[in-house]
Amino acid sequence: MTPSLPASRDKLLFTPGPLTTSLSVKQAMLHDAGSWHFEFNAMVSTIRERLLNVAGLSSAGGWETILLQGSGTYGVEAVFQTCIPPNGKVAVLTNGAYGNRMVQMLTLARIDHVVLRTPEDAPTDEKTLQALLSTDKAITHVAVVHCETTTGIINPIEEIGAVVRAHRKIYIVDAMSSFGGVPIDFGSVRVDYLVSSANKCLEGVPGFCFVICQREALLACEGFARSLSLDLLGQSKGFRANGQFRFTPPTHALLAFDQALNELEAEGGVTARGERYQRNHEVLLAGMAAAGFSPYLDPKVQSYLITAFEYPKREGFSFDRLYRQLSDRGFIIYPGKLTQVDTFRIGTIGRLFPEDLRQLTTTIKELMIIESVNQ
Amino acid sequence: MTPSLPASRDKLLFTPGPLTTSLSVKQAMLHDAGSWHFEFNAMVSTIRERLLNVAGLSSAGGWETILLQGSGTYGVEAVFQTCIPPNGKVAVLTNGAYGNRMVQMLTLARIDHVVLRTPEDAPTDEKTLQALLSTDKAITHVAVVHCETTTGIINPIEEIGAVVRAHRKIYIVDAMSSFGGVPIDFGSVRVDYLVSSANKCLEGVPGFCFVICQREALLACEGFARSLSLDLLGQSKGFRANGQFRFTPPTHALLAFDQALNELEAEGGVTARGERYQRNHEVLLAGMAAAGFSPYLDPKVQSYLITAFEYPKREGFSFDRLYRQLSDRGFIIYPGKLTQVDTFRIGTIGRLFPEDLRQLTTTIKELMIIESVNQ
Repeated sequence: MTPSLPASRDKLLFTPGPLTTSLSVKQAMLHDAGSWHFEFNAMVSTIRERLLNVAGLSSAGGWETILLQGSGTYGVEAVFQTCIPPNGKVAVLTNGAYGNRMVQMLTLARIDHVVLRTPEDAPTDEKTLQALLSTDKAITHVAVVHCETTTGIINPIEEIGAVVRAHRKIYIVDAMSSFGGVPIDFGSVRVDYLVSSANKCLEGVPGFCFVICQREALLACEGFARSLSLDLLGQSKGFRANGQFRFTPPTHALLAFDQALNELEAEGGVTARGERYQRNHEVLLAGMAAAGFSPYLDPKVQSYLITAFEYPKREGFSFDRLYRQLSDRGFIIYPGKLTQVDTFRIGTIGRLFPEDLRQLTTTIKELMIIESVNQ
Repeated sequence: MTPSLPASRDKLLFTPGPLTTSLSVKQAMLHDAGSWHFEFNAMVSTIRERLLNVAGLSSAGGWETILLQGSGTYGVEAVFQTCIPPNGKVAVLTNGAYGNRMVQMLTLARIDHVVLRTPEDAPTDEKTLQALLSTDKAITHVAVVHCETTTGIINPIEEIGAVVRAHRKIYIVDAMSSFGGVPIDFGSVRVDYLVSSANKCLEGVPGFCFVICQREALLACEGFARSLSLDLLGQSKGFRANGQFRFTPPTHALLAFDQALNELEAEGGVTARGERYQRNHEVLLAGMAAAGFSPYLDPKVQSYLITAFEYPKREGFSFDRLYRQLSDRGFIIYPGKLTQVDTFRIGTIGRLFPEDLRQLTTTIKELMIIESVNQ
């Protein structure tokens, strides 16, 4: 008898995270590690370097990964709280809830900012940014979400990066839902601070996030920090001083993450993982079309990570009922977050395979048929 | 074959946390839960109420538990970042690293504060506080650490609370290392904000902390928050709106915690757990005395949670060597954090029993004998 039974009976999570993870990732958590212990610290050090490798970078090239306790949101806010000087000003490009969350962070931290908003179904616009940076010289930083989970839209971080670089501003990218599942070429994108999380495309469990940045750029932020817990530079100094987190790390989540990185490598890295997610997405789209659902976004701007579907036009559709029926059958989907249109979302990341999407969409199709007969 | 083998081979953690947890607590993490899912949210709601019960409180009495992603330090800082008004001033009583950490938080958040420092081996002093509050009328809040993990000293939170209450100030207690292992009578202590963590005496795994407070008091803090991630009021509103964390929670750590609370109840609650820790501490003291080690603190102010021991006087003692020898034998102890005296620390909390302390101290004694023969 193996310990696989409980996990194999879990409902599959077709969500933007926390995700379904492999049993072996979860089994790595059957240990208690001492957060001061040299064996644990050696693993943390390896994780930091391996994350650079996932990004195609290295510490020898001046790059650094800073792990931070908390959800991905903490990582984005830590960049703002640590790296924006007292007289700094951030331009936020937003077309969804996660871009709007950046605005909330800056408002609460009393950091000057300006918002460039595009509709939820349109990518953020580098031309408007170009115009803004030409006129508003107070702007020091530009921030954008790569894959806006609200809709699943992919924003053009490379094109935006070119504008940011031309104006010599500092570039912050929230790559929460994309890093590890969508190849990001740091040479082309020229990002200064990239933020992501353990429990997205890297298929770890939630508990910490991380920021990838140039060591020198971070060192230049001395004295700006407005928070101790969210002080990225302090966290970085802690790692450099003794290899340790400054405060208690989620040891089990880190053990799981080490195994998750092994499994990313075994799968063939970011490219191979992206291909699996792409296949998941294709099966999803075909299956949902057969069930009578249309995606909200134009396919040209739609990621293969998470997809928003519009409620069907016919009367009597209840997302809540569909959600519960699917839950009873072992599938967890996700509600929508759009302000204008009724949608729900289905994620295709995590330890999910095309066959899982086939089963999900077949079940949805059958439920819709039964519902139409019953009406 | 059960999945107990890996965990049973783990080294025992005689540390202030993360701690050794039971196998069943860790096995609860062999599941992936959807953070939006109603089953998960129902569990979170139960956890919040069960924590009030551990404290002898209830939501019907106007109390509330706010769970927060991150380490315990995040919880203390969240209270400061959320609850101190712009013109507020905090008196911090400190006699160790965790009190000093509060001062760091307030400094970075640009919150006015005054520090009442006592030596590391002396409890914080309510009489000095009394004098301070009588003269400095700008003070709005008083903050203190219950068990200062630096030394293991217990500070008199009840006596301090009486002074705070008499002056109608707001009282913040960091009960990180004590809550769940030391009975705290909220009726006597009159604390307004108590902060603790999942991975201390409650014997969960690290990943989140929590704050227990009066709902009305928290609501009065509207508009003070300086951070989104650390906005306790925002977090509370999120729970009340839809039962969810605002941002991705450490789902696995919460599943583990639910089981940890079951095991606290099965053990007989805080009193029974405190008695086990007390027995652990007694075995530790006797065993360490036999091995030639003296505790740093006066027994009158020493907690039974963690104990600092002075380096022995004899020449050639190396903490690093002892640490590694013990690690090789399956025991992880903890270095000291004192500024004036060379100490190391041994924790007696977590899933540890008197027999574990007997084995640890016997091993230490044998290692010291071997070392003295070899010299």
